[in-house]
Amino acid sequence: MKLYWGKLLLTKNLSEELKVVTDATKSHKYPAFKRGPHDDRYFLTSDERILEYDIDSVVFEENSPYQKVQIVHSKSLGNLLILDELQNLSERDLIYTETLMQRGKVDYKGKEVVILGGGDGALLYELLKEEPAFVTMMELDEVVLRACREHLRGCCGNCLDQLKGDKYEIIVDDCVKSLDKMIKDGKKVDFVFGDLTDIPVSTSPQGEAWDFIRLILNKAMQVLKPKGMYMTHGNGASSPQSLKMFEEQLNNLKVPVEFTTDRAFVPSFLEDWVFYQVWQKPLPN
Amino acid sequence: MKLYWGKLLLTKNLSEELKVVTDATKSHKYPAFKRGPHDDRYFLTSDERILEYDIDSVVFEENSPYQKVQIVHSKSLGNLLILDELQNLSERDLIYTETLMQRGKVDYKGKEVVILGGGDGALLYELLKEEPAFVTMMELDEVVLRACREHLRGCCGNCLDQLKGDKYEIIVDDCVKSLDKMIKDGKKVDFVFGDLTDIPVSTSPQGEAWDFIRLILNKAMQVLKPKGMYMTHGNGASSPQSLKMFEEQLNNLKVPVEFTTDRAFVPSFLEDWVFYQVWQKPLPN
Repeated sequence: MKLYWGKLLLTKNLSEELKVVTDATKSHKYPAFKRGPHDDRYFLTSDERILEYDIDSVVFEENSPYQKVQIVHSKSLGNLLILDELQNLSERDLIYTETLMQRGKVDYKGKEVVILGGGDGALLYELLKEEPAFVTMMELDEVVLRACREHLRGCCGNCLDQLKGDKYEIIVDDCVKSLDKMIKDGKKVDFVFGDLTDIPVSTSPQGEAWDFIRLILNKAMQVLKPKGMYMTHGNGASSPQSLKMFEEQLNNLKVPVEFTTDRAFVPSFLEDWVFYQVWQKPLPN
Repeated sequence: MKLYWGKLLLTKNLSEELKVVTDATKSHKYPAFKRGPHDDRYFLTSDERILEYDIDSVVFEENSPYQKVQIVHSKSLGNLLILDELQNLSERDLIYTETLMQRGKVDYKGKEVVILGGGDGALLYELLKEEPAFVTMMELDEVVLRACREHLRGCCGNCLDQLKGDKYEIIVDDCVKSLDKMIKDGKKVDFVFGDLTDIPVSTSPQGEAWDFIRLILNKAMQVLKPKGMYMTHGNGASSPQSLKMFEEQLNNLKVPVEFTTDRAFVPSFLEDWVFYQVWQKPLPN
């Protein structure tokens, strides 16, 4: 069982004494909220519960044209990418990338891959270890790339040091534009990853949030080979409502699809996250 | 990267607009604190950060003569034992027990084991699977045993259904008294587990918190065979100060000892926890 020492025991005793003195039926002590010049110690779970992180410094902060980009240092998670106040990826989150790409279950050898977003470089870095034919990453935000290249090397290694390598290219532009070009050129690939950040990050008109997600999904299906697969992160396992809404979008695409899900506890999210694998429904014989 | 939908997007947009209207340089939204008849959604990490749990009901609540015993239900953790407002063990915490007992690294077959505390029954239940000769558990609080027997079966299985079995006995009494009897009788065992709850839970006079911990450690060392081992939980990995203080107690026992540590992420603690393995220093040749 759990044992606390020190300050907590003092406050516990104080709380007990106050209870007697004030004749209260119950009491519950909370630590003071810590506000300051960089008060981003508090982040939310997918079901909007508050969590206080052990963040001790802000390593990088810059407002890009698209979002607020921060890298903070957590004592237990290492460096952590924060985009518009949402925790995105920490140096302890390899399980996030491995579950997203279904490592060990999917063979990338010799395959063509597109990453939509993925600016932290973690997915690109891990995919390149699987000997794919070529990976094309389409990331809009140069600031994210720069922040992660410098301060999130525990995730991206050296793969953001240059935009083009033997086996990959990073196109710094709106992925909608890049996808449209692929569609126009008739270029098809084996895997597309939806590794985009928050909804408003696009230069294209997008209407409602779900319209944008459906737009991306429909375009992604168009650049997939018939047996290709679309893979993406979903939402927290404790947010079944959001997962259901996403699945309704999947069931509402121009091309009928089937999908499976997998889940993993992501250290920097402090909760279970659900990931999707989507493919085109085979035509009936 | 992470994607949020729904309510959060609304508050984000509102926050952005207020920032412009009020000419603020920054803004940060927090969810409202949820208070109610059972406001125990909030628990702390070892370094006193606040965490909000997805608790949706209180399954059991009773004030024993020693502590406040609660079992609450969490959507992601299952049932969770709370003692004096500290999260103790949930039905997703097998890793806690396995790290405490060093499963796979220590052989319990045919061994004599004593558990000090351990009222949730998880350690007893897991140890009995390892075919020990006999396990004696010394738990003070009958209310904890009753609560866990009924509502924490994901941890203790059926091993709290009766106080005595072929291979174990649960003595419902102060472990200090039971240890003194063992010492007087000259009874020695292979393993002693320090699985006690918060400090004030004892009927014996104990002075300061550290005095009590040292008292237990000294008595435990007296009932161990020369090559026996004492195993216990320490504290959060993010609380090096507390760990250091505990290690000072270890270095201050009547019998000189050596120790190793192991650590694991405990789901219901939402942090890494450190566990200790302690044994008597061999005499110089």
